[in-house]
This record gives sequence, C-alpha cells and structure tokens, in this order.
Amino acid sequence: MKKAVVLLSGGLDSATVLAVAKSRGFQCYAMSFDYGQRHECELAAAKKVAASIGVEDHKLVKIDLCAWGGSALTDNIPVPDAHSYQEKVPVTYVPARNMIFLAFAVAYAEVLEARDIFIGVNSVDYSGYPDCRPEFIKAFARAAKLGTKAADEDWEYTIQSPLQNLSKAEIIKLGTSLGVDYSITHSCYNPDANGLACGKCDSCDLRRNGFKEAGVPDPTRYQK
Amino acid sequence: MKKAVVLLSGGLDSATVLAVAKSRGFQCYAMSFDYGQRHECELAAAKKVAASIGVEDHKLVKIDLCAWGGSALTDNIPVPDAHSYQEKVPVTYVPARNMIFLAFAVAYAEVLEARDIFIGVNSVDYSGYPDCRPEFIKAFARAAKLGTKAADEDWEYTIQSPLQNLSKAEIIKLGTSLGVDYSITHSCYNPDANGLACGKCDSCDLRRNGFKEAGVPDPTRYQK
Repeated sequence: MKKAVVLLSGGLDSATVLAVAKSRGFQCYAMSFDYGQRHECELAAAKKVAASIGVEDHKLVKIDLCAWGGSALTDNIPVPDAHSYQEKVPVTYVPARNMIFLAFAVAYAEVLEARDIFIGVNSVDYSGYPDCRPEFIKAFARAAKLGTKAADEDWEYTIQSPLQNLSKAEIIKLGTSLGVDYSITHSCYNPDANGLACGKCDSCDLRRNGFKEAGVPDPTRYQK
Repeated sequence: MKKAVVLLSGGLDSATVLAVAKSRGFQCYAMSFDYGQRHECELAAAKKVAASIGVEDHKLVKIDLCAWGGSALTDNIPVPDAHSYQEKVPVTYVPARNMIFLAFAVAYAEVLEARDIFIGVNSVDYSGYPDCRPEFIKAFARAAKLGTKAADEDWEYTIQSPLQNLSKAEIIKLGTSLGVDYSITHSCYNPDANGLACGKCDSCDLRRNGFKEAGVPDPTRYQK
C-alpha cells in the first residue's frame, strides 16, 4: 500500500480529504498543527476525525505562528462577520500558513518515504487566500522535488488537492458518500469556550450554506 | 531603509550572511530555530552574533523537527566523522529543513513587509544537501511569490544566498573584511557539554580547513 501524508485541520474540508485519500487506497499519516489558533478546538476535532476515519499515525506539531502576528486567527484582531470585508486577502489569512504546513508535510513524507501529500485547499470558496491556489500548489511541489532527496532520485512529490475545484456543497456530498461524520468536524473561526460555532464568521457562513445547498442536514452545534 | 529577514543559525556561514545583509544597507530581522538540534549551543551563538553585528529584532522559533526523526542532527544516529561516509545525501541532512526555515522566513517577511530573505546556503561545500542548491532556492522563491500577497501585488521575494558559490575560505575572508567576530560562532555538529567543538565532524573539518586556506587564525575552541 502506498503511504500518504494528509494535512488534517479538523475542519470539514480536511476530513473530506482524509476520506478521499483512504478511498484511493493510501495508508494515511495525518499531520495537524497547533499554531496558537483561536479556534483550538479544531485540534480536538482533528483527533476525533483521525480516529473515526482511521490513520496509521497522527502527528501534532506545535509551531509558533503567532510570534509575529498578522492574522485575525492568531492575534487579537477581531474575526469579522461573513461578507463584512471585501479586501482581496482577508484578515483571517495567516501569512504563509499553507507553505509552512506543506514544508512540514514534505519533511514527514521524506522520512516515511511517502510520495503523496493531501491538502484540503479549495479555490472556489477561498479565492482570497493566495496559498490555496493551484499555481501555488504546483510551484511548491516543484520546490519540494528540488529541495529533497527526490532531486537525486528523479521522482517527485504529488501534492493532491482533491477539493480544489469543488463548491462547499460538492465537498459535503463527496464526504457524505464516503461516510464522513461531519458532526465531529469544526470549522468556526470564533467558537465559544464550549467549542460551539458562532454562526456568523465567514467559515460558519460557507459551511451552513454548503449543507443547505447539498441537501444534507447540518450537524453543527451553534451558539444560541 | 529596506528590511530583510536573515536566517541565522549561529554558524560561520549565517554570521557572514548577516554581515553581508547589513553591508548592503538592509535593516535586518534575524530568525533562528530551536529544532531539537544536538548542537543547541548554536542558539546561544546566534544570540551573540545578532547582538554583535546588530539587528532590529531576533525571533527564536521553536519547532518540532525531531517528532519524526530522520537525521543525525536530531536523532540518536551517531554523527559521522568527516569523510567517513560517501552517500549522496549525508546522514546529517535534516529532511526539508531549509524548506521549513524559508517558509517561516516568508511568513515573517510578509508581516514585516520585507521583500528580501537572506540564507547562508552554499553549494560548494554542501553539494550533498539538496535544499542548499540554487535550483531549489529559485523554485522556492517562485512558490513564495505565488503563495503570498505578493501574487496579487505583482512583486516577488528575493531570496539572497550570497555565499552560494564561495568556498569556506572565501566566506571567511569576506566575513573578516566585514568585521565578523568568528570566535562567537558555532559550527560543530557534535559539541561537548561546554560547547567545545569536536574537531572531527564534517562541519569542524570544513571550518578548520577554511581558516587555514584563508590564512586567518582559527578562533574555534576545540575539545582537548
């Protein structure tokens, strides 16, 4: 069986990606990051998702993304409500986050001798995040080939982003067909102390509309 | 004044790079990593070097590179003596290390609004490390452009590797001409508890020969 590293945030998208990787016959090694995110209950969700779908191992990597700030997800910048901002790159963008996550995934893959890395980037919903675009993923894969043993052995890492062109509703339909239990996933940027979703942020808005459009009951627990 | 992020390990090469960046008129923001390296006294050296040459700020980022092993620098694999191994990629190679360091540097640069990143890679001495080669650096710069706000604003990060084609002796001559105090730098992969260099590993060997060739007195403190 081929091995794959799967970046697993605990959100709806990455849970779906893990199910896709399993359905494609990979032995999956999940990797999650504790980067000082506001929504730390993501990590509890990641553990539940890894256990529910089944992985060979699950690495939790603690990193220091908040040491220099720059994002509403790691700083004291308020998380805006959905549609309340129209900048090209939203304030919830964490500088170079996916680049850092992918670099760690490549390190892990190199040690495992895995050649596939799965990531739940999605350019339909999040076109404002440069590190979710296919041209970035392609350029990163090139750097990964040239910066690792792959360069000397003439093969390359495949960075699989199976959600790249799907809408949130399509992602939910895909995951549902693969048996993903979305009740254990977490998407909200601004949950309360009990992990209940705010229902107001961009991420909640996309998720809620996704379930509605997909015609799948929304299992998310929202704050009253 | 333009800002630059400078990757600073505390070794001879990165100290020289910091001096080069200063001499080119950059305001320098140093970044060092605590990645569970055997030679942790590198970090003490990095602090001394930053203070000696002068930086605007110095971020120490703690990361978890040893969570999955794979290198003599982070594992219990013995550090080999110089010239005792002839593999293409040495056992002291840390998987994807420079990729991870550069990804963090891009994140820091993005927050600082710096467009230049300095790194002390050097392909003459370390041709066995794929992540020190110019083709990797170029591919990474491309990924950094496409994965950050730079993509929408049509500029790019310049990853400056001023030591790329210099021999160790040339690096030492360059740094000496810029006033670098090499007595506070640390290169050994396998120092003793007092931080004294082993004099036997590949890194010690290159350093010692470099001083000899450069005709500069070697200030390194070796174990008896």
